[in-house]
Amino acid sequence: MRLDIVTIFPEYLEPLNVSLVGKARARGVLDVRVHDLRHWTHDRHNTVDDTPCGGGPGMVMKPDPWGEALDEIIASGSGGEQVEGTRVPDGGPTIVVPTPSGRPFTQELAVELSERPWLVFTPARYEGIDRRVIEEYGERYDVREVSIGDYVLAGGEAPVLVMVEAVARLLPGVLGNAESHRDDSFAPGAMADLLEGPVYTKPPQWRGRGIPEVLLSGHHGKIARWRRDEALRRTTVNRPDLIERADPAAFDKKDREMLSILGWAPGPDGRFGRVAPDVEE
Amino acid sequence: MRLDIVTIFPEYLEPLNVSLVGKARARGVLDVRVHDLRHWTHDRHNTVDDTPCGGGPGMVMKPDPWGEALDEIIASGSGGEQVEGTRVPDGGPTIVVPTPSGRPFTQELAVELSERPWLVFTPARYEGIDRRVIEEYGERYDVREVSIGDYVLAGGEAPVLVMVEAVARLLPGVLGNAESHRDDSFAPGAMADLLEGPVYTKPPQWRGRGIPEVLLSGHHGKIARWRRDEALRRTTVNRPDLIERADPAAFDKKDREMLSILGWAPGPDGRFGRVAPDVEE
Repeated sequence: MRLDIVTIFPEYLEPLNVSLVGKARARGVLDVRVHDLRHWTHDRHNTVDDTPCGGGPGMVMKPDPWGEALDEIIASGSGGEQVEGTRVPDGGPTIVVPTPSGRPFTQELAVELSERPWLVFTPARYEGIDRRVIEEYGERYDVREVSIGDYVLAGGEAPVLVMVEAVARLLPGVLGNAESHRDDSFAPGAMADLLEGPVYTKPPQWRGRGIPEVLLSGHHGKIARWRRDEALRRTTVNRPDLIERADPAAFDKKDREMLSILGWAPGPDGRFGRVAPDVEE
Repeated sequence: MRLDIVTIFPEYLEPLNVSLVGKARARGVLDVRVHDLRHWTHDRHNTVDDTPCGGGPGMVMKPDPWGEALDEIIASGSGGEQVEGTRVPDGGPTIVVPTPSGRPFTQELAVELSERPWLVFTPARYEGIDRRVIEEYGERYDVREVSIGDYVLAGGEAPVLVMVEAVARLLPGVLGNAESHRDDSFAPGAMADLLEGPVYTKPPQWRGRGIPEVLLSGHHGKIARWRRDEALRRTTVNRPDLIERADPAAFDKKDREMLSILGWAPGPDGRFGRVAPDVEE
């Protein structure tokens, strides 16, 4: 997979040399290219921003440097010829624009992006990029405006690190143990839509604290049930929205018993809702 | 504000030297200390993980290095004396544990954390940290298990970059223009719970694309109304959940007209829901 990232803070992307993504690059699974947007400015001050049209606080990123940057990067990777200023779409990248105004970045979207051959990320600063850039490239390429969560950041670089990591770990050959996808919170499978419960390792006693006996029992069925109950418990406390949204068919008889103990019951439409105060972990 | 971060990938935190957080450190607003967890291991291989109790894939972070690290870091910053192994809480940090099983990180939580004098972040790798560490410090300190979103990452370092940036930009004297908080998506105020609409800057024509005329009109009332309408439009498309959750009292007569045009109407409880297909941007 090829990744291009255009930013005014290339050094912010240094973590892409480290850990999982760094190893994927070293192995040739990922071809990551970080570009300094100011390379495509032409004035003495390398200006990338200007005042917002219509007034208001903050600055807006000018369309020209982004346009020149994207054209050059896309041309460098497109096998297809340029037809009247329009590149053939099957040679083009998926463009990911981090913005708090975008659609939520989810594990589902991470999976979708991990199947693309080429992603271009455009992390912005200030109040964002002139809208015309999104429109211009949106007519020719798949442009996704994406938000990683409901909080305000100084720029799109940290979200790019998050998204690249989420996508990279899904690429074949990147994670050492293929199995370790399976029980992840938010991964499809048995624990879908439940948070993972607590985990323990050696020693059996630490600062006077033991490990739940069932985990030392060697009884796989009981351990699986305990983990499922703990996942239900934690999800009801930390993410009641996940239980409320869940398809009730996902809960078996034992799940329903546990949910009842935790103070949850099915409503008229079968979906579960809280009927008693929270049971703390 | 003091920030301590304990990690097995200290180099992942290099972006904290850059941009907004880097400047805040240079100005003395932030005292950031990044620690290598392996410093608190005692075997030849600097082991920080072991197999999960009860079996299963992946590895779990051992409690000992985390306990030693947190004790030493907390002791280094606590003015209060140690009373029978328990530090006085008013000298202790708020401990932020990034985990997909945590409560959602929101702008509200960023504001709350920005008012604390001392935060300790514990980004984990593998399947997470032995639960007993959370319990041990949770009895003496304010420990927050927090998730930045519903996607799976390789470790907690990228979420720490996200959270530190969200918190740092709220500290007094960090953002140049105090006003630029005001219109942020998710910030309290006029645009609360609405996404920001499109932004534009010079030139007035770019690649044959103009700027909406109203923004060039100089008419502040009309510009404000247009921005509000565009915010409503984008929110209904990208984040219908925000409209559905919104207090209907937040919508004035003009908002309601726009929502009606966009295919939304109030239900029996007054809250808005979609009644017609999406109007694309």
